[in-house]
Amino acid sequence: MVRMIGTRLTERFGLSHPIIGAPMAFASGGALAAAVSGAGGLGFIGGGYGDGDWLEAEFAKAGNQTVGVGFITWALAEQPDLLSHALARSPKAVFLSFGDPAPYVDEIKATNAALICQVQTLRDARHAIACGADVIVAQGAEAGGHGERRATLTLVPEVADYIAKHAPDVLLCAAGGIIDGRALAAALMLGADGVVVGSRLLASAEALAHDNAKAAIVAADGDATMRTGVVDIVRGKDWAARYTGRVLRNGFTDQWHGREDELRADKAEAARWAEALAAGNTDIANTFVGEGAGLIHTIQPAADIVAEILAQATQLLRGAKDFLK
Amino acid sequence: MVRMIGTRLTERFGLSHPIIGAPMAFASGGALAAAVSGAGGLGFIGGGYGDGDWLEAEFAKAGNQTVGVGFITWALAEQPDLLSHALARSPKAVFLSFGDPAPYVDEIKATNAALICQVQTLRDARHAIACGADVIVAQGAEAGGHGERRATLTLVPEVADYIAKHAPDVLLCAAGGIIDGRALAAALMLGADGVVVGSRLLASAEALAHDNAKAAIVAADGDATMRTGVVDIVRGKDWAARYTGRVLRNGFTDQWHGREDELRADKAEAARWAEALAAGNTDIANTFVGEGAGLIHTIQPAADIVAEILAQATQLLRGAKDFLK
Repeated sequence: MVRMIGTRLTERFGLSHPIIGAPMAFASGGALAAAVSGAGGLGFIGGGYGDGDWLEAEFAKAGNQTVGVGFITWALAEQPDLLSHALARSPKAVFLSFGDPAPYVDEIKATNAALICQVQTLRDARHAIACGADVIVAQGAEAGGHGERRATLTLVPEVADYIAKHAPDVLLCAAGGIIDGRALAAALMLGADGVVVGSRLLASAEALAHDNAKAAIVAADGDATMRTGVVDIVRGKDWAARYTGRVLRNGFTDQWHGREDELRADKAEAARWAEALAAGNTDIANTFVGEGAGLIHTIQPAADIVAEILAQATQLLRGAKDFLK
Repeated sequence: MVRMIGTRLTERFGLSHPIIGAPMAFASGGALAAAVSGAGGLGFIGGGYGDGDWLEAEFAKAGNQTVGVGFITWALAEQPDLLSHALARSPKAVFLSFGDPAPYVDEIKATNAALICQVQTLRDARHAIACGADVIVAQGAEAGGHGERRATLTLVPEVADYIAKHAPDVLLCAAGGIIDGRALAAALMLGADGVVVGSRLLASAEALAHDNAKAAIVAADGDATMRTGVVDIVRGKDWAARYTGRVLRNGFTDQWHGREDELRADKAEAARWAEALAAGNTDIANTFVGEGAGLIHTIQPAADIVAEILAQATQLLRGAKDFLK
């Protein structure tokens, strides 16, 4: 039986349930995106920092499945052609995170692709809505990878209230800490029309991550992550200070967090980290994952992950009235 | 009509709904605690850093209403008699936060008071359960006042899973970001047996806070808070580095956050801040409040706040099944 959860998001995008697969840079390739869409949600290819050849190859792997594409907004400025190439593949939506979406709105709106803007503050939500976003993703700091300081639990209802008052046709999704059906049910209670799942899908069979990184996620509890800028520094990624990356703490972060300027000058360390990443040495190369790592206990095909989230959320939503006495 | 939401917490404590009023230091006096209990929840007097005369006076103000009492755990060590005095008032429960509860367990367990331990990490939850806590409060970093780094959305289900496996009779409440009925309904979906409400009740008629501080909460959006240690430094409160306080950002935090060592040496600044606190000058003396400030728009009697939370949660829980198609 296909379980169905219906919201404004499923209506607008023709989905069976309101689950979006996060466009995780490097990790969300065509196979993962297609698997999430194939399971009734909406999968995204993570265009990340922008690599045209990679993007082309991953769109090909998604085959005929309808998927979306995501970019790190500030990185698009360095390769403006990339958006045009992606739009030529007729993505269902373009998912922009971390930066001002304004320069890209007209080009996206000239196609059939929906514009999804991920934000980390109320202030940025207001701006994205003013720019014409079709969907706002309110991302809390518990999220894996890049993010900021606010929490999903307060950001989602605050943005929901803003939308209800000022832009009632805009949809809202929750991101950050969405691991299982409990979080999906909770997000719907908070006023979200859907959820964006990242970390849980990083521990999927299809995710493009080293097996050791996936194993590290399964082994970790939720206390084991931290937000830091040192992983971006060692990789030479030029992120604004407001955005940090949530990773599993390890010997590398123990050594360098708080010593950012020294790290910038240490070219040998950059080489050591890059080698460790390629080798799957998670004691040095950090694994990007959210606080929800403590709720992830298996590596499974993405379709099974989506089915489990749905089954649990369905049971909770059906039983919610039993709390009333 | 009295709306009723039933959980293991309401059964164990004989409540009409699973709402606990946080024992906010200085702010949760006897009147607020009694109002929350009178509205069908469980109110707490905030024993905070420990002032025997204040505590005695506030217990008197609670009258015959059943209430609990909370302490900052590490501060109890400096005044161990205070716990005995509080237990002599037959509190329904003792709520310990921020420190090791072990030294106080035997004395509490020798009475009829339940032991509630607030924790900020899975690690501390495990310790509190091993110590014999009857209720674990999993507090996320979105909370106002003191806290740590993890988010309510991931900490609650992770502790719920731990409890289910290792200590199924222990109850679990969510704290941090619990402002309205959306968050109560969400917390129940996450596996909590109840919620602890702080910031929302700080903006109540009964809370012992300056009217200007309450007005500042109403005026703020959720982007306006930050976690910092500088407010503790300027007040001379000796908190461990792991715990920071969430406050409304203002000129004082703009000036001093990141300059902690300089601030410690500046006695004039301590005097200026204390004067501002007494005068209700929120441009200098920071207001302790959580990220949920953006969801607080009125100052109301506590009973009305509780009733509104319940009405909204009831509606959401009743309608949850309608998401199923």
